[in-house]
Amino acid sequence: MTTYAVLGTGAIGGWYGALLAQAGHDVHFLCRSDHAHVKSHGLLVESPLGDIHLREVQAYDDAADMPRCGVALVTWKATSNGGLGPVLASVVAPESTVVMMQNGLGNEEAAMVAAGLEPDRLLAGLSFICAHKVGPGHVRHLDYGAVTLAGDDMERAEEIADDFRDAGVPVSVEPDRVLARWRKLVWNIPYNGLCVLLDATTDSLMADRSLRGEIESLMREVCTAAAACGAAIPEAFVAQMIDDTARMEPYTPSTKLDHERGRPMELEAIFGNPVRAAREVGVEMPRVELLYRCLKYLDTRARA
Amino acid sequence: MTTYAVLGTGAIGGWYGALLAQAGHDVHFLCRSDHAHVKSHGLLVESPLGDIHLREVQAYDDAADMPRCGVALVTWKATSNGGLGPVLASVVAPESTVVMMQNGLGNEEAAMVAAGLEPDRLLAGLSFICAHKVGPGHVRHLDYGAVTLAGDDMERAEEIADDFRDAGVPVSVEPDRVLARWRKLVWNIPYNGLCVLLDATTDSLMADRSLRGEIESLMREVCTAAAACGAAIPEAFVAQMIDDTARMEPYTPSTKLDHERGRPMELEAIFGNPVRAAREVGVEMPRVELLYRCLKYLDTRARA
Repeated sequence: MTTYAVLGTGAIGGWYGALLAQAGHDVHFLCRSDHAHVKSHGLLVESPLGDIHLREVQAYDDAADMPRCGVALVTWKATSNGGLGPVLASVVAPESTVVMMQNGLGNEEAAMVAAGLEPDRLLAGLSFICAHKVGPGHVRHLDYGAVTLAGDDMERAEEIADDFRDAGVPVSVEPDRVLARWRKLVWNIPYNGLCVLLDATTDSLMADRSLRGEIESLMREVCTAAAACGAAIPEAFVAQMIDDTARMEPYTPSTKLDHERGRPMELEAIFGNPVRAAREVGVEMPRVELLYRCLKYLDTRARA
Repeated sequence: MTTYAVLGTGAIGGWYGALLAQAGHDVHFLCRSDHAHVKSHGLLVESPLGDIHLREVQAYDDAADMPRCGVALVTWKATSNGGLGPVLASVVAPESTVVMMQNGLGNEEAAMVAAGLEPDRLLAGLSFICAHKVGPGHVRHLDYGAVTLAGDDMERAEEIADDFRDAGVPVSVEPDRVLARWRKLVWNIPYNGLCVLLDATTDSLMADRSLRGEIESLMREVCTAAAACGAAIPEAFVAQMIDDTARMEPYTPSTKLDHERGRPMELEAIFGNPVRAAREVGVEMPRVELLYRCLKYLDTRARA
């Protein structure tokens, strides 16, 4: 049985970690700000699929105390990736796999550099979920929750996928993590960006016909950049994302939740890294860059 | 002596109209919402250059009652240009000149269509001013105030410029009104747009190094579109606008004042018309279009 390190017990780490633990896996949680609370009260995850209350949690406030695990799920925000080096050095063994369950581009690369890992030791973990942390050791899952695991080692990805599936999580596995990340950006860039900039939820953006066309233009700009970076996304994907979102319940993207709570937004991972990756291959992303610079201004002002 | 019709007694009409009247010109003011107030209390214009209180104002609430004037200054917002036809039909004589003292692109064209005027009867009037209306018949001038008059009939433009100069207004005259309008858009598009979108004043935008670079990119996008539309703006103009604005006092553009007061923003004139004019000659303005669609969303929401 694979042991799991969950690095960051926010909405993503809390939800998937609790499901894996409930299914009987050996799960070790790094929870820094609310370690004392989780040690005494456990981890509470509320969900329309049924609440989970883990009373005895293997919780740590210092990665140095954690065991080396077969799989490390990096579930903190990409804005905290500066701390990857020492944490991965503590929990990763020679055969471990690191799953970067974060938004945006460049997260696997950050882990490779920080921990000296080969590419085949890393998977991208893309989570399509609406969940947020509502208090210490307390996560609320609202809707969705499917995961895509993507990377070179498909066999390992399938093993991890099976653990997730046993725990009740729908998982798809694919070989190209860069493609998987760009594909998710087709959604995250317009919606995470515009929901912050316009102080709105997805349904309100979609109800504005003129803005909806602009969201499509943003998506096409992302697809053009992705293609130049070697990630070919079929043209029909844009229409599918638009249709899916129009049918979705009103949704507040994670970047907006972060901003509302005065936390830094994942701007480099979701916006800055794609703009720079495209520029390196000679493609400009003018719409995305404007969005990025405006969001950076708001982020700086919010934390001044 | 030329007679003037001032069509719209807001900040622009109030300020320039009061200066012309004070200098002894025969000025007729169309003031609809505050006609009764102006008739009984006159027009008060406060300015660091000295206050003006016109006690006896030739004020009208219906253009049909106004005399035909040698010059009609259209000083209402471009958002009201739908009403140009009957008003110009009342005040314009065969030899009259119409000066469109409004922001944006397409205003002269709107007047030509609405009133059947030939191009040489129209001038663009571009005002570089910080002023706003603070109450009925009450305008506050804060800073600046130079005017550019631009159009085919340079002789007529110089005559009107002389009247403005006699009244204390610095005026420059130039032959190409489309070039003059695009040049002003180089400033208005980034600053009017971003000050609304980011709820900021110019100084705060300029203090953010990353956003400042994006403002330059927006300006260059406007220059590229202008050039494609036949309006060649020298490259040095962008750097000059950036430097001038960095040295300016904190400034709230008119579009932001409109939005703050729940009034419609001049979005078609400042953003939509340039995007469409550029597209007609095969040039996209992706940054400006994103800005435009976001502002339209905010405008619609504010007035819902």
